Formats: sequence, structure tokens, C-alpha cells
Amino acid sequence: MTESNTDKNTPWLKMCRISMPLPSLNDNTADADRFVKCFKKTACMDHINIPFTIVKKIPALFREYNYQCSAVFSCIKDNCTLIDIFPLHNNKLYAAAADIGSSTVVLRLVDILSGEYPGEVSFINPQYKVGADILSRIHYAAANGVEDLQKMLVHEINSQLRTLCCKHNIEPSEITCFAAAGNTTMTHFFLGLDPYWICREPYIPVLNTPDILSPSDMGLDINPCAPVIVMPGAGSYLGGDVVAGVLASGMNKNSGTSIMVDVGTNAEVVLGNSEWLMACAGAAGPALEGGVAAMGMMAGSGAIDKVAIDISTKEISVHTIGDAPPAGICGSGLIDLAAHLFLSGMIDLRGKFDREVCRGRLSEIDGVENLLIVPGDETESGNNIYLSQTDINALIRSKAAMYTILNTISEMANLDIHDVERFYIAGTFGAYIDPVSAISLGMIPDLSSEKFKSVGNTSLEGVTMALLSSENLETIYKIRDMITYIELNVNQKFMNNFSAAKFIPHTDRALFPSVRES
Amino acid sequence: MTESNTDKNTPWLKMCRISMPLPSLNDNTADADRFVKCFKKTACMDHINIPFTIVKKIPALFREYNYQCSAVFSCIKDNCTLIDIFPLHNNKLYAAAADIGSSTVVLRLVDILSGEYPGEVSFINPQYKVGADILSRIHYAAANGVEDLQKMLVHEINSQLRTLCCKHNIEPSEITCFAAAGNTTMTHFFLGLDPYWICREPYIPVLNTPDILSPSDMGLDINPCAPVIVMPGAGSYLGGDVVAGVLASGMNKNSGTSIMVDVGTNAEVVLGNSEWLMACAGAAGPALEGGVAAMGMMAGSGAIDKVAIDISTKEISVHTIGDAPPAGICGSGLIDLAAHLFLSGMIDLRGKFDREVCRGRLSEIDGVENLLIVPGDETESGNNIYLSQTDINALIRSKAAMYTILNTISEMANLDIHDVERFYIAGTFGAYIDPVSAISLGMIPDLSSEKFKSVGNTSLEGVTMALLSSENLETIYKIRDMITYIELNVNQKFMNNFSAAKFIPHTDRALFPSVRES
Repeated sequence: MTESNTDKNTPWLKMCRISMPLPSLNDNTADADRFVKCFKKTACMDHINIPFTIVKKIPALFREYNYQCSAVFSCIKDNCTLIDIFPLHNNKLYAAAADIGSSTVVLRLVDILSGEYPGEVSFINPQYKVGADILSRIHYAAANGVEDLQKMLVHEINSQLRTLCCKHNIEPSEITCFAAAGNTTMTHFFLGLDPYWICREPYIPVLNTPDILSPSDMGLDINPCAPVIVMPGAGSYLGGDVVAGVLASGMNKNSGTSIMVDVGTNAEVVLGNSEWLMACAGAAGPALEGGVAAMGMMAGSGAIDKVAIDISTKEISVHTIGDAPPAGICGSGLIDLAAHLFLSGMIDLRGKFDREVCRGRLSEIDGVENLLIVPGDETESGNNIYLSQTDINALIRSKAAMYTILNTISEMANLDIHDVERFYIAGTFGAYIDPVSAISLGMIPDLSSEKFKSVGNTSLEGVTMALLSSENLETIYKIRDMITYIELNVNQKFMNNFSAAKFIPHTDRALFPSVRES
Repeated sequence: MTESNTDKNTPWLKMCRISMPLPSLNDNTADADRFVKCFKKTACMDHINIPFTIVKKIPALFREYNYQCSAVFSCIKDNCTLIDIFPLHNNKLYAAAADIGSSTVVLRLVDILSGEYPGEVSFINPQYKVGADILSRIHYAAANGVEDLQKMLVHEINSQLRTLCCKHNIEPSEITCFAAAGNTTMTHFFLGLDPYWICREPYIPVLNTPDILSPSDMGLDINPCAPVIVMPGAGSYLGGDVVAGVLASGMNKNSGTSIMVDVGTNAEVVLGNSEWLMACAGAAGPALEGGVAAMGMMAGSGAIDKVAIDISTKEISVHTIGDAPPAGICGSGLIDLAAHLFLSGMIDLRGKFDREVCRGRLSEIDGVENLLIVPGDETESGNNIYLSQTDINALIRSKAAMYTILNTISEMANLDIHDVERFYIAGTFGAYIDPVSAISLGMIPDLSSEKFKSVGNTSLEGVTMALLSSENLETIYKIRDMITYIELNVNQKFMNNFSAAKFIPHTDRALFPSVRES
């Protein structure tokens, strides 16, 4: 990770080898009390809680192991709890980290002893079947109960985790901790909490700060006493994924002010430094995520991610992820395309196709103008890939929203956005986006390119960091408490800024000196 | 209770009325976090854990209650946990206390707010069906699993509790705490823990000190988040019932040394003061408990509890509990009878019937001499009530064991037993026993009568005291830690003392100056 939230790393998921004195008439302490006594001495701890399911299996286990065992336990905020007992020479200590996105879920196997990640798997959130967007899933939950959606998700997590474990020679019961982050609604679905009030004014979640949970609370097939930690969120539209992201970016440790943008279903923005953090979120996402345009697809093999346009011939050449035949366009590709269409004069500053410039590439389909991007003989499906005026309009709204969010939060912080020291772009989107194109469109501010930093899946990174150290886990809660959340739905500044941002790059060209006039 | 363990009584089961600010766009904290924030302020607490089952029902409940509620919570060792949420003006705060005996279970409803006990019920432990004595139940568990025995017990507790609640206009879900004490084996049965190793050298229980448990751990039908507290024991043969008993007696607060005797299936003895406590246990019980003699019965209506014998005519007159026609004899009655038989010369110092003195009252049944106590025309059943030589022999062994236990523990403590300031007799047995008779038999030491104090069901009293105050609950664990347990099974002093105690009152008559020579 970029900056160091990891100066000190005290593990909180631990293992300790225990050799108990054998029971005798002179020492006939009960099995569980014998363990506690010996554990306290060996691990230098004041106390340990033994979950009742472990108490029940202790007598048989201790006699099988001849009163020598390896104890896996957690130590969170002075609270020390036994997770399981293994044979004395056990040397496995695994946790799982999860980033629960509304489109994609990523699971990572974490080897706590080495700090390495032996395996990772990413898969489509099975709730997709019910609805691509979060709102339709909330409606589904209102009609059918949230349990359905929870089961879909947790069953798939269990199944993927089983495969992952199998591949790495681990039993699911050897996963002795599970930590997850997601946006607030996904967190509710994961926990089986009613999301009904999240999307209704005044937007109230059931829970922002889950206590440590048990796998049986949501039906996870891992060690039954594994602590399940769900990253705390700061509001209905600022979930634990963003809080974990701040930890991963390290912006909460920088004295200089940074901004972090995470584009998923919503765009979430955090601005701040080691003294303060402000955040807001808005519906800038869909078009940028590539999920809305007719030709849109998620970043993956065959997705157009880069575009170049010959200024004189207006010839469009595309690059795809994995160099596969083009199948569609992902969010970063769409931005690149729109930026080059603008720079080559094929769209004007309101985003309208210029018929003179586009010429034969333009055709009308169902009453809407479409620009041919890749002819069918070059595409995967054999069908032409078009960009419609509707797609551009949606993109303009999204880019305007994004810029307005950035602009508004800076204004709220009394800060010129050009003064930020770092501009972190998180998520898959951030991995592919070309900042120059995004600036050309007026989506992000006109900063020098060395300020931009793509930080990948910060949600998963943050969760992993929290799994590996007490300090990081504590910092997660500190970050959550530090964040002042700005509700944009009721923000007048936002509405004023939005209109001005609907031009390419902006009505105020002075804000974008690096963008060439077309 | 006798002495004051109750100087300071801070309740740990509490109720607090919470009025939360209504959610708004300017305050859109999650429901659960809103509660925590408001609770911390109202109750002046640093933290509260909300069990996940409560989190799930919070959104509907808060809206129904308009964000005003009454919160029931527990505060044990700085650990504050929500138990349930009720309407704002709820004024019920109930707990249940249980004394789980191998013969009899007593349930008591405790009104935490008033400190009163609105109801109590006592019933036969349904495990009786499997075996009257504990050992046969342990064997049954080994063959059939402990779950069977657990279910018998817990089902009956649930059913009796339901009736008790119904009588007092309470829902079982309004029982927000359950505390129980029992001997170590009964505790294992209640918790569903394998008792296999308790009765095998070196006598190892699974657990002496249960953590706070959940009703679902044993299947109790009370509030699902009610803490279940089981009194800690000090060894296989010194359970939480005795530890609770020490609290109830107050002997742990006296500067002078006291002794407490609890006769149940075993006889348990605790000796000590505010500085130290020693304990031991032995099989002195059965004959004294009235469960072994042919005419034996538990103390109840129709049980002979007092006996007088005319020195010259040898006429036996009996008194029964409830003045009902005699149906049998309870432990204290048996002691009274044997003492008067000895004082009137009808048995000799080895406990053998004197044919000359007993004359026509003596007859031989199945080759064993039997003394007619009550003729059939005066008894409930119409059958003669006899006392057999076998019964007396068993009683002599029991009384010898009891005296030897008392004698041995005093020797171990380097103490003359006549120096104890108080002699507490606990249990039903203690309620009916005549110390003079017990002294005459040489069962208990020859102390002046004002030293004896019958203290009733100290187990239930101790549990109730622990339910009502933090200080008492903490003291329970302190008492447990203070107790040094002496294993009599391997004690050479015990074996030496036992033979001398098999005479009435003792081979060393100087120990019993108050007993008249016959």
C-alpha cells in the first residue's frame, strides 16, 4: 500500500502452544479451567473466553491430544476469545478477507503467520439475478424478505471459499477469521438486515458498526467460532468499503490533504488528511462503471479500455483488455472514447455529435443517433459496436456529477481542489482510467499527472490490513469516527455546481488549462 | 440471611429508559448506532454490546415505539450487554433463580426492581426416572449420551417456569436472566457436558467456571438474550451449590471460624472464615437424606421428623410433618429415632438392637431384625413401619462418615472443632434436624446448642443474592477461588478417624460430654 498505516503490526489473530500438566488427584482442576490457567500463563493474558461449543468438545479432545494443544484465539480490545483447539504442532492460521461489491465479490485467503495471500477469487455477486442495481434489490427484499438475497450471497461465498480452500489444501473449518467490507446496502444483505429504510429519506441504515459476529449469524461455512468482522460504515451511502479504502490509501496518516475517489455503483469521495476527513457520495457511477451504456460491459477480456482517434482522418482505433476481439466497452474505455471524440471535434462541448465531422460513421437507430466505433467484422459477436447519443448524455451526466461532487466537497472544506497533494483513484475503474482523458472530459480536476495514483481494490486491501494487525483494526474505527459525512441530496451548492459541469470540460474553461481547445 | 454479604448492593441487571432523537437528514445515524449513542449518554456507560438478534428487530421496533424504549441490560465486570428492548413504560424486570438438586429442583421468580420473590416452585428432578442416585445417571449418560438427561431436566424447568410465569402474569420472554446452582454433576447435566470423567479417578469435571451462557446453549425457554449464569464449583465433589451456600451463610465475612454442612446426595462441609476456606465432601448422605432406609422418605407431609421414647416403658411416640398419619421417616426423623433408641438403651454403642430391652417390638423379617416403630393401624398405608438392623447399620456408617469428615477437615486446618463459632446446617435436612439428637448419635460434634444454626436452602439463597447485586456475584467467584478442596478419597487421616467414629457416640466418650451414659 501507498503510505504506511502499518508502522506497528501486532497480530490480533494468534496461535499459542499449550502444554497442560496432566490431571492427578493432587491437581483435579476441571479440563476447561486447567486450559484457562495454563493459557493465561503461557500467553501472558489476564483472561480468555471459551465459547461453549468448544467447552463441550474439550474433554475428548484433551485426552486425545494428551493435554497438549495449539490454541487459536483472537485478542480484540483486551477481549481474548478462544477460536479453536488444534493438535500441538498445527502450523496453519488462515483468515479470509472479502470485498462484497454489488457487481463483484472478491475473496482472499490470508495466511496470518506469513502475512501472504496464497489465493484469491473474484466472482459475480449472485444477487445480479434479482437486479443489477442496488435499488431493485432493496425493492425485491421489501417484497420477498431479505433472507433470500442473503442466502444467494452467502451460499455463493461458501461455495467459492470451499473451492479456494480445496485448492490450497485447507479445510473451511481452518478459516478462523472472516473480515468483510461492502457498501452499506451490501453489508445489510450480507448480514440479513432489512435495507428498507436505507433508500428512503432520511436514509437510515439498521447498523453502521457491527459488533464482532459469529459465522452462524449469516450462515458462513467456516470455523464455527471464527470471529466475523464487518467493516463499519459512516452512513447509508458511505460504507465500510470506503472506510477500509481510506486505511488502505493511507490518506488518514498524511499531513497533506488528499482526495480519494471510488467509483462503483455510486461514486464515493473522501477528502482530508491526518487531522480531518470529509466524505460524500453521489450517483455518478452507473455510466462510468460501464454498466449502463448499450455497449457497456465490466472491465474484462474484450472490453475496450483505450481509444485513439486520428485528428485528421477521424479513424478510431481501440485497445481491448487481453487484446481480445472487442466485445463492448468498459467505464474507463468510455471516458477515453468520449474524451477523444471531443478532442477530435466529433462531439461538441455539450456532448452532441457533430454531423459534419462524424459523417458516414453516424447512423440513426430507433430515432437515436449512433456512432460506429468498431465494425462487426472486427468484433467478437460479429455485430457493430456503436456509441449512441443516449450513452453520451448519460456519460455527461455522470461526469458532471463526479466533478460536482469533487467540487462541492472541496468548497465545503474551504479548499481549492487543485491544492490536494494526492488524488487516489480506487477500484477496477481506477486501474484502467487515463487521467488525461478524464480531465479532458472535465470529469476530474486538472491536476498534474503525478498527483494521480491508482490504488486498486482499496476495500479488499483495507480489510486485509485490518486482519493482519490490531493497530489497523483499531484505525478502521478511528477513521469511521473521523469522517464527517456530507449529504449531497439536500445540498444547494451541489445543485448550483451541477449545471456548470454539464459542459465539456466545463463552462469555466479556466478550470481546465491543460485541455486543448478543439 | 444470617451475616451480611450485602453491605453494598449494586444491581447488575438493569433497566434504563431511552429517548432517542428522531432520525433526520441532519442526523442519519443508523438505528443501532443511534441507540448506542443515546444509551451511553443516558446510562453513563462507555459501551454496550447489542446481540445480533436484537439488531435484526431494531428497525421495526424503533419505528413502532417512535424511538422511545426501555432497555434491559446486564453489566458484569465492565461488560455491558443489551438483553432486550421493551416499550418505554415497561416496569417489569424479572429473573429466575434455580437450585438444581439431584432429587429436587427449586425455581424462584425474582423481581429485580423490588428485590422480592413473587413465586417459587419445587419439583422432583425428572432424571429420577433414569436413576435415583447420581452415579447411575452418569452411567446412563455414558451409554445414551448426556443430551437425553439434559432434555429431561430442561424440559421440566421450562414447563414449570411457564406455569410459574403464567401464575404471576409474566411472559417467559420477560425472564431476562437465569441463574442456577447445582452440584458439579447436576451442572454438567444442565449444560449437556459429558460427566464421564467426574466419577473416575482423578475425578475431572469438564468445567468448574462456566462463562456467561445463552439460553440456547441448554435450550431454556426464556428471553433469548438473557444471560444464563451457572455458579462456579470448586471441584468434582464441591459444586456451585456449596459455593453459593457459603455466600448465603455469610461465613466468608466472619472473622471467627465457622463450619457449614450441607447434606444432600453427598455431605459437603466448608470450614473457615474471612481469611481462608477449606472444603471437603464425602458419601455421608444417603442414609441421612432418608433415601436409603426401607421406611425412608424425603421430608414432606407424613414423614416422621421427631421421635420420643419413654425411658421406662420404651413406648415410642412420633411426630410427623403436617401432623399427617405416618408414611415413612425422613433423615432428621431417623437421626432422632436412632438417638432415642440409644438413649433408652434399645440399641447399644455399636448400634445393635438389645433384645432384652426391645422385647416384643423386635421381629425377624427375611432374616434381619426389625423394630416396630408405628403399628399399621396408625400409618397412612395401613402397613407397619419398621426400622431394620440394616437401616441402623447404614445410618451408623453415614453418621460415622459425617463426623469423620468434620473431624478430618478440622485436623487438616489444625483446629479443635469445638472452637468453631458457628455451625451452619444447610438444606431441608438442616431445617428439621435436632442437634441434640445428632450429637447423641455422635454425628456432629458436641457443641453448645446456640452455635447451631439452620440456614435452609443456602444454594437457592446464594443464587438469589448473586442475581441481585454485582458485589455478591463477584463474591461468588472470590469464594470459589478461596476454597481449598481436600480430597478425602485419598486421605489417610480420614480412614483412621472413620473406625473410631462407628461407635455411638464415639470410642472416645470424652468428645461428647453432654451425652448421658445409658
